[in-house]
Formats: sequence, C-alpha cells, structure tokens
Amino acid sequence: MSQFTPTPRTTLKRLPRRGVFDRAAVHAILDEGLVCHVGFVMDGQPFVIPTIYARIGDRLYVHGSAASRMLRSLAGGVEVCVTVTLVDGLVLARSAFHHSMNYRSVVVLGRATLVEDAAEKRAALEAVVEHVVPGRTAAVREPSEKELLATSVLGLDLVEVSAKVRTGPPIDEEEDLGRGCWAGVLPLSLVTGTPLPDPLMPAGRALSPEVASYRRPGAA
Amino acid sequence: MSQFTPTPRTTLKRLPRRGVFDRAAVHAILDEGLVCHVGFVMDGQPFVIPTIYARIGDRLYVHGSAASRMLRSLAGGVEVCVTVTLVDGLVLARSAFHHSMNYRSVVVLGRATLVEDAAEKRAALEAVVEHVVPGRTAAVREPSEKELLATSVLGLDLVEVSAKVRTGPPIDEEEDLGRGCWAGVLPLSLVTGTPLPDPLMPAGRALSPEVASYRRPGAA
Repeated sequence: MSQFTPTPRTTLKRLPRRGVFDRAAVHAILDEGLVCHVGFVMDGQPFVIPTIYARIGDRLYVHGSAASRMLRSLAGGVEVCVTVTLVDGLVLARSAFHHSMNYRSVVVLGRATLVEDAAEKRAALEAVVEHVVPGRTAAVREPSEKELLATSVLGLDLVEVSAKVRTGPPIDEEEDLGRGCWAGVLPLSLVTGTPLPDPLMPAGRALSPEVASYRRPGAA
Repeated sequence: MSQFTPTPRTTLKRLPRRGVFDRAAVHAILDEGLVCHVGFVMDGQPFVIPTIYARIGDRLYVHGSAASRMLRSLAGGVEVCVTVTLVDGLVLARSAFHHSMNYRSVVVLGRATLVEDAAEKRAALEAVVEHVVPGRTAAVREPSEKELLATSVLGLDLVEVSAKVRTGPPIDEEEDLGRGCWAGVLPLSLVTGTPLPDPLMPAGRALSPEVASYRRPGAA
C-alpha cells in the first residue's frame, strides 16, 4: 500500500489515530473535494483563498487570472499550504465538550510553481473542468490562445501530504451516557438542486448528458 | 448601512464588483458557514487548518484543545487569516474558460488572541455549539471546569474584513452563444441526511427537537 512519508510538519501531534498517509485515501479526498483553500504569506501576513483545483497523478493544479494577486505571488515559487476539507457529519454528543464533526481533510505543503509547458497547462486546465463536471470538456469550446495567456496555472507536487479523518459516533464520558437527549451523527452532504438555465439560451433546451447525470461524489 | 473599511490588503485588485464590505452581508455569510479555514505561519511555512467557529457581534471565535499545535501557535498573538467559503453553484458556460462558481466568501485578517476571561470563554464555547446546532446547548451537559481548562478559545475582531460574492448565470463570449450545449447554473447546497443514532443510546429514542427540525441555512 503506497504511503506518503510523514515529516515533522505533517505528523499529527495529537489524536494520531486520525492521521492518514495512505496515497489512495489522500487521492480520494482530493478527488471528492470541490474547492481547496490555498494559504500563502505576503509581507508576513497569511492569506487563505478558496479556489477550484484538480489532481493529475501526484500533482495538484490551481489556476486563475494571470493578473490575480494570489497567482502572481505564488508564481514566484513561495511556500504554500493547500487544504481540502470534506464535511461528512455533525457529531452530537451528550456534553457540549464532546461535540465534534466527522470530516476528511488533506493538507499539502510545498512550493507551487508556474506551469510553463503548454501541453501540461492545457491538460491541467482540462483536468480542472473535468474535476468539477466530468464530461464537460467535450461539450464546450476549448481555451483559445488568448485565454491561455490570460490564465496562470500553478502545479504543486504531492510530496509533503497528510490527511485527517474522523468517523463514527460521539465519544461521550461514561457518566453522561444516561442523559435523555438524542445523540448520534447528523450526516451532511453537498447536493445539486434544479439546474437554472442561462436566460440567453433558447427556451426548452435539454440538459447536456454531463449535466443531467451530475451528482456530487458522496451525495446522499 | 454599516460597512467595513477596505484596507490595501482587503481591496480587491481584480473584479472589484465582486467585493462586499457591508457588515450585515459579511455577518450573514459568517453565520451561514459551518467550517472556517484558519491560516497562520510557523517558521515561514503557511498552514491552513479547517475548524468550527462562531461569531458574537463583531468578534469571531475558534476553539480547540489547549494542547493543539494551532491553538498554541496562535495564542501567542500571531497574524491569522480566517476564511469562510459558501459554495452556491457551478457556473456552466459554453467555453471552458468562462466556467466559474457562484460562491460567497469572507476573509478576515488580524491577530487572534487567547480568550482568558472566564465568562467570555464560556459564552464563546456556547456560541460555537449554537452556531452548529441551534438549541443544542439546552439539551446537553455544559462544560466542566476541567473541560474548560483543556480547551483554548481564540478571539479575532472583525476589523479588516472583506467578502467576495459571485452570483448569476455564466458570462459567455458573444460568439459562443450559438453553441448547442446546455449552459446555466447548477445550484449546490449542503443538506442533512438521515440521523444516525449513537449505538450506545437505547433503541427507539426520539430525536431531540433541535435535531428533528435541523436544516442547514441555505439548504434547498
């Protein structure tokens, strides 16, 4: 079973049983997530920005306007932290203290670099669209040269990586088990609602197959 | 209308029309969110950690084990960035380039400080539980002195704050409007599933009212 190697920075100091370094498990969390939060430092101040991403093999990609502050800052090769969090449920205990959440999260540390190779850049941008809506690439116009120039893509190798996972019911104190309140887990999932057609589209157009069949991974 | 004052660090350089500084709008996003991502710097490396939070007035609170690396780092009074992101929909355009997301996010910059006042600490911890499950506090055992000692609470004043919001349909290029694919928005929301009773609870116990009536704000 392939594992990421823990480093001092990714070793869990507390609750080490929640730590996950298995490569397949990490990949699965990254593939199920929709948005990541990218942390970086400018003038000593940390910034945390939500953005779409994609994974190809052991490499993560984020993209954005070539003019964006985040992309310009990161393209210089600074240290980043990319975190993906999936919220699976509310853990309702019998004491306020033991309330918790079931979740799966991945933290990736490293230095993001600007993707300059044209083929890799195209593949990464396609992966981003496919990450969000599998099958969508085939239905839409591909990026023009001008659009590619206006977009920056950053790559981050999955080397220093850890995941944390909490599952299961609340862990209450023995002496609280007799309390009369309901205890357990309230599952949470991200689901899609009714598609809202673009008003500029002729009325009555059928959903494309990738939209009609769309569901978030993990949706109930 | 009360507004947060933009600073050079919170002024949007691009797409300024997405910027929101209205206090009520910022509060509403923070109150609807479930998890925040806290960014901080240790030895030059940014870390981004997901955690539960709550707002009381113009102050955010996060909590955790007094032994946790994050809490100990932050309690010293370092700069943080707390980001809350609500994902509202996938924006499906006719070109790969114009795909986007509808979202609402808040970024709070500042210096978190350890809450030492006992009454404020209790109020903050209660607010955290109530933020996640309104009405839950009354049903469960309140924190013991020992539990309070084992928990650290950090407060962060809402001073340097900005929000970003994207809504509405895709914005396509004129020349792509004739494409035959479906275009529009696929709404997303976080919903609860069937409650899973704690196996240690006597069978057949009814849901507490705050669980029976629970729904995420914004759920379809």
